[in-house]
Amino acid sequence: MTRKLLMHVGPTTIDLDVLLAGVKESSGFTSEDFVYASKNVLYSMEEIVKAPPNSQSLIIPGSGTAAMESCVSLLNKDDKVLVISNGVFGNRWTSIFSRYPLKVETLESRPGEVVPLEEIAQKVEKNRYKMITFTHVETSTGVRLNIGDYAKAVRDFVDIIVVDGVSSIGGELVDMSGWGVDVYLTASQKALGAPPGAGLLVISPRALEVINHENLGGYFLNLSNWLPVMKSLKENVGGYFSTLPVHLIFSLSKAMELIRHEGVEKRIKRHELVARAIRGGVEGMGLEIVAKKGLYSNTVTGVLLKKADPVRLLEEIQSENVELAPGVHPALKGKYFRIGHMGWVTPNDAIATIGAIERTLRRLGEDIRIGEGVMAVQEILGA
Amino acid sequence: MTRKLLMHVGPTTIDLDVLLAGVKESSGFTSEDFVYASKNVLYSMEEIVKAPPNSQSLIIPGSGTAAMESCVSLLNKDDKVLVISNGVFGNRWTSIFSRYPLKVETLESRPGEVVPLEEIAQKVEKNRYKMITFTHVETSTGVRLNIGDYAKAVRDFVDIIVVDGVSSIGGELVDMSGWGVDVYLTASQKALGAPPGAGLLVISPRALEVINHENLGGYFLNLSNWLPVMKSLKENVGGYFSTLPVHLIFSLSKAMELIRHEGVEKRIKRHELVARAIRGGVEGMGLEIVAKKGLYSNTVTGVLLKKADPVRLLEEIQSENVELAPGVHPALKGKYFRIGHMGWVTPNDAIATIGAIERTLRRLGEDIRIGEGVMAVQEILGA
Amino acid sequence: MTRKLLMHVGPTTIDLDVLLAGVKESSGFTSEDFVYASKNVLYSMEEIVKAPPNSQSLIIPGSGTAAMESCVSLLNKDDKVLVISNGVFGNRWTSIFSRYPLKVETLESRPGEVVPLEEIAQKVEKNRYKMITFTHVETSTGVRLNIGDYAKAVRDFVDIIVVDGVSSIGGELVDMSGWGVDVYLTASQKALGAPPGAGLLVISPRALEVINHENLGGYFLNLSNWLPVMKSLKENVGGYFSTLPVHLIFSLSKAMELIRHEGVEKRIKRHELVARAIRGGVEGMGLEIVAKKGLYSNTVTGVLLKKADPVRLLEEIQSENVELAPGVHPALKGKYFRIGHMGWVTPNDAIATIGAIERTLRRLGEDIRIGEGVMAVQEILGA
Amino acid sequence: MTRKLLMHVGPTTIDLDVLLAGVKESSGFTSEDFVYASKNVLYSMEEIVKAPPNSQSLIIPGSGTAAMESCVSLLNKDDKVLVISNGVFGNRWTSIFSRYPLKVETLESRPGEVVPLEEIAQKVEKNRYKMITFTHVETSTGVRLNIGDYAKAVRDFVDIIVVDGVSSIGGELVDMSGWGVDVYLTASQKALGAPPGAGLLVISPRALEVINHENLGGYFLNLSNWLPVMKSLKENVGGYFSTLPVHLIFSLSKAMELIRHEGVEKRIKRHELVARAIRGGVEGMGLEIVAKKGLYSNTVTGVLLKKADPVRLLEEIQSENVELAPGVHPALKGKYFRIGHMGWVTPNDAIATIGAIERTLRRLGEDIRIGEGVMAVQEILGA
Repeated sequence: MTRKLLMHVGPTTIDLDVLLAGVKESSGFTSEDFVYASKNVLYSMEEIVKAPPNSQSLIIPGSGTAAMESCVSLLNKDDKVLVISNGVFGNRWTSIFSRYPLKVETLESRPGEVVPLEEIAQKVEKNRYKMITFTHVETSTGVRLNIGDYAKAVRDFVDIIVVDGVSSIGGELVDMSGWGVDVYLTASQKALGAPPGAGLLVISPRALEVINHENLGGYFLNLSNWLPVMKSLKENVGGYFSTLPVHLIFSLSKAMELIRHEGVEKRIKRHELVARAIRGGVEGMGLEIVAKKGLYSNTVTGVLLKKADPVRLLEEIQSENVELAPGVHPALKGKYFRIGHMGWVTPNDAIATIGAIERTLRRLGEDIRIGEGVMAVQEILGA
Repeated sequence: MTRKLLMHVGPTTIDLDVLLAGVKESSGFTSEDFVYASKNVLYSMEEIVKAPPNSQSLIIPGSGTAAMESCVSLLNKDDKVLVISNGVFGNRWTSIFSRYPLKVETLESRPGEVVPLEEIAQKVEKNRYKMITFTHVETSTGVRLNIGDYAKAVRDFVDIIVVDGVSSIGGELVDMSGWGVDVYLTASQKALGAPPGAGLLVISPRALEVINHENLGGYFLNLSNWLPVMKSLKENVGGYFSTLPVHLIFSLSKAMELIRHEGVEKRIKRHELVARAIRGGVEGMGLEIVAKKGLYSNTVTGVLLKKADPVRLLEEIQSENVELAPGVHPALKGKYFRIGHMGWVTPNDAIATIGAIERTLRRLGEDIRIGEGVMAVQEILGA
Repeated sequence: MTRKLLMHVGPTTIDLDVLLAGVKESSGFTSEDFVYASKNVLYSMEEIVKAPPNSQSLIIPGSGTAAMESCVSLLNKDDKVLVISNGVFGNRWTSIFSRYPLKVETLESRPGEVVPLEEIAQKVEKNRYKMITFTHVETSTGVRLNIGDYAKAVRDFVDIIVVDGVSSIGGELVDMSGWGVDVYLTASQKALGAPPGAGLLVISPRALEVINHENLGGYFLNLSNWLPVMKSLKENVGGYFSTLPVHLIFSLSKAMELIRHEGVEKRIKRHELVARAIRGGVEGMGLEIVAKKGLYSNTVTGVLLKKADPVRLLEEIQSENVELAPGVHPALKGKYFRIGHMGWVTPNDAIATIGAIERTLRRLGEDIRIGEGVMAVQEILGA
Repeated sequence: MTRKLLMHVGPTTIDLDVLLAGVKESSGFTSEDFVYASKNVLYSMEEIVKAPPNSQSLIIPGSGTAAMESCVSLLNKDDKVLVISNGVFGNRWTSIFSRYPLKVETLESRPGEVVPLEEIAQKVEKNRYKMITFTHVETSTGVRLNIGDYAKAVRDFVDIIVVDGVSSIGGELVDMSGWGVDVYLTASQKALGAPPGAGLLVISPRALEVINHENLGGYFLNLSNWLPVMKSLKENVGGYFSTLPVHLIFSLSKAMELIRHEGVEKRIKRHELVARAIRGGVEGMGLEIVAKKGLYSNTVTGVLLKKADPVRLLEEIQSENVELAPGVHPALKGKYFRIGHMGWVTPNDAIATIGAIERTLRRLGEDIRIGEGVMAVQEILGA
């Protein structure tokens, strides 16, 4: 039997219609239906993140990391870059920038926390940075940063504000225009709910101006190579730089159609409800959440165990037809696991997942209150 | 979003691999892969019901009712037939037989109950019946008959024992050989977990002998027309009487593969566990089950409401991404609904369904104990 | 590799979108999307056959034969029925009617020919028949009857005119209203291009009046049992008599959508072009067609071989990724094979099929002109 | 109707089972079935290219260009690199290397031709190059290089021999071990016949030794980041660097299964036959092929037109349900188009495509001999 709940951080349980939309035997990168699907994805992205007028979105074959690295092509040799890191994926920015001749500085929070706004404010007032990067939801811990406040606070002091929205776009409120963000990026397999295989970026007119072939960056991930194709696709005309993941883009286009049908606001509310239910369940059974209060996200919940080994939990819970995500923050190694709840997740998944965790943890001898997790979920869902 | 739990009485939530197995662009009724799939279905059926040696199974395009009516071709003009009816689908036998020149008698139970064994024993000892029909699980109420005892009690007094296993085969223990049953039939969309579109029968050697073209019955549903094709398919050779539902049979063949992989006994245990969990949930929230104690089935649960209108429940619960089945027994009209739990159903579905019923019924003002249903489910699943 | 051309008489090569439309995990017979799909199929059928106002179409689980037998429920004991048979499927009417207390007479043509109009005219002028049945395209030989002329000729002399449109509807011009036909029926897997599993009927208001529970006929195939459900579905309200093939109906609904998008007239023209190309190819390579000139159909072509064994051809041509249909007319046993060309067939299939037949027959030593078949196809397609 | 032949250079017409294998609702990058599929792809790649023992294959999310750029991580600052370019995709190597601090030299052929072996031999004997790159089949013109001879000739003079096998692996003979090649790379959507979205590399033990974090290259396309994950997957243990295209890898794994079932040699022969048939058809109708005699490939054929505009041909032929690829070599702009024939292509596709080209070109007034193309195809296929 293949029925299973994939409560992972992406790919996660995918809507069947999204998958079936990618079953195309004879569509190529010049086919009319593909060009239309690409156009739909590009326009939808701009709508979902509330992009400023004349923004341009791009689809980069690869993954979220590919989209992150493509931002290097907005920079020049010796540019100063400030990375605000709340965890593993914040640090990934530093790893990327370190491969290029840039001056990178990193402010890093403790796990489950965020870098305080004041610390950053001080920093940017003293130094002019060409680029600052934030992580909206830090996938390694489930911590959400209040991008609105942070972006506004630094807006006057840095040239390009980049936000990694990998675990946020589609599941969290994003207001690129209102918050003054220049680049908002994500990946196909997260809260947009398609299979993995593409990074997606939306770039403000201000940042678009900066893109040119003289900048840093390699070839494949260079935005200056992709920009003409993406502009062309937005006008419903095919183009070619390197082959796009045609079938994935059909799936993404279907996801966008379903997102529009659900409504972005309603979708975020659904994520918010499911996240609250899951946190309620976790605390109901007597466990602690990694993210500090006020920093909870709609999409990822890190859960600290008392005695049980999270690796054993992940193995054991498969017999309950549930798959969870391992913890990856080095500072919490062996102490926690993650529940991904994004994309097409429902309240039904929340109660089923909490139920399965309760039962499995009890079998593993963890000190929890069996039944009180699901009871708490039910109270939140039924409120 | 199309993610939904179909807790209906068939079709019910179907495993994706079963569906995908039916996506065949170029397979026809003479294609090698189709002949092989048919053969697999026929042999698997005999294994699942524990058929006596030299039995023959048949696939009849149509539905469970078609399979029921095909049994008419085992009879001759003026034959005496005894129908044991525990509800709507028991009565269906009477409706079918009444279309033919037969002498039909019907013993009917009250809803939620079964016809007592003694009543039947008395009857068959007095009259020689050519055929007696039982319903293993009465889909209209969820009542299960102890076929083993009933079949053995009448075995010496009737020629052909037919059991409607529509809501049982694949989810309940069936021992055709041990119980001395001559015909066990079902439909593709029930506990076997494939789409609807076919009735399936397994016929004992004794009953096979009776089949001939002089018997009653029309043309399309006449077993004598289908028998040569089915014998041929069991020997991996194609045949034709009327076009079989090729794509459905590919799905059924995949279902059989998954059933074999799970193991029939383990599959029945899974059904039994989920059924207990659902009943626990129903009683936990303070509602009553239609079937009397001791008559519960693994596949269908009828639930009596106190004040709420079941029609409203069925409408409202759709917003929770759950679909339930309406009550259909005329004697309980407007008083109950049904939960189907068969095929690929999991404990996750049980807790999610009970959770959704609790929340919806509370919104509808039903007098239930919110949270205690899911708590009870959790206790049963975690035991 | 699974790429293959299924040039069979049904199922035939199916459009992928039609198949994918049936991949539904959680749609049941009360689900909203299913009710809508059913409604779409019912209305589309009436449009495709140009049904008179207030007609009613029906979906009968099973096959074309099931739809044929359901017409018995329009008859009463001892009614006189005239069967006009041009081959195996014409004779099937006689086999069906013979199972019921009816007075059946059959006029039968030689293979490849049709019963002359005069012969029938004489017959119906002499006797009043309650029902006459015609076969629009006789699948066993590919012969097409001019239903317009035949129906008009008998209209005043018989009560109910039934046409088996199994190999015609969707590929041949049908004008039920203009021709005065009472029942036009087909099956899902033929020129409508969906998987097998359902018979479809459109019934005129005059014939609808006749339907009642006192008529002949069994239970499952009795139109009086299905009529209330089908009327309800046309009004977008679910109903139940026996479980419909839910997933197949989603596929059929998609087929109807594609048919409407293509346009019925354009679709018939495509069938006509492909059929001409295939006949051109057959004659170009020097072989003879079973149907006499003037009796060719758009959907099935029977081909007579000179020396080669058709069974060997069918086996051998599989290595060319083409599957053909065997001959089934007893009078031509061992002498011919059939090419099905209906549903989603294209000119590309025509040339590929003729090419594969040429190459295979040459390998088998048949006396043909290699290359001239495809050349002839090309001339017709490029004209 | 969605039935169409995609005779493009990738993606091309894809086998349905390959597509369906990617329809997975609940498989993530830690799921057991995914880890197994990845392992299968990695081992199969090494088998298909006949890799030397202890080679390591890698899957790089993105495309063929991504795989090409990942080779930069085998190089160090100021390394000398020699690019052998026979067209657009040969030049792509130069474009890639130019983004890094390398000393790049390029030898470029005329379109339809290849750089002569002697020219290269002279070059490498004079200078020590760290890396030389060849293109096995130049997708822009369809020209095939005799890699065996070229690789052997330079083997003693360069450190790392890289071959772009994008349009060859799966459709042309590849003998990495016998020819002494260090890196053979391709993309998922070419002759392997899966959807686009991944580059694939096989790296010899010698080249593996060179990979380390001190080399050139960015982050995402850096082989040193992917190597640990790929080693782990070969041992059936999951790993993470950046999310892999999970669903695509399931499709690739299915493609590998089908390739193994067909047999690599038989697969190459099929490609060779179809390619010959297509070239026969092109020349039969009186048109010229871009690649010079002796340089034909099994996978791509460039066709020169006399008067007709290739853009118009590509538009018009869509009405024949065929899609072709545009010409992209700047030196032949407006003069040619391409036919892709790889992956799951069959002789049926060859004759259908040539037939459609003939008919369309005649409508466009091109000077061709109608019917002689298909006749020539038929002669080759039937030989």
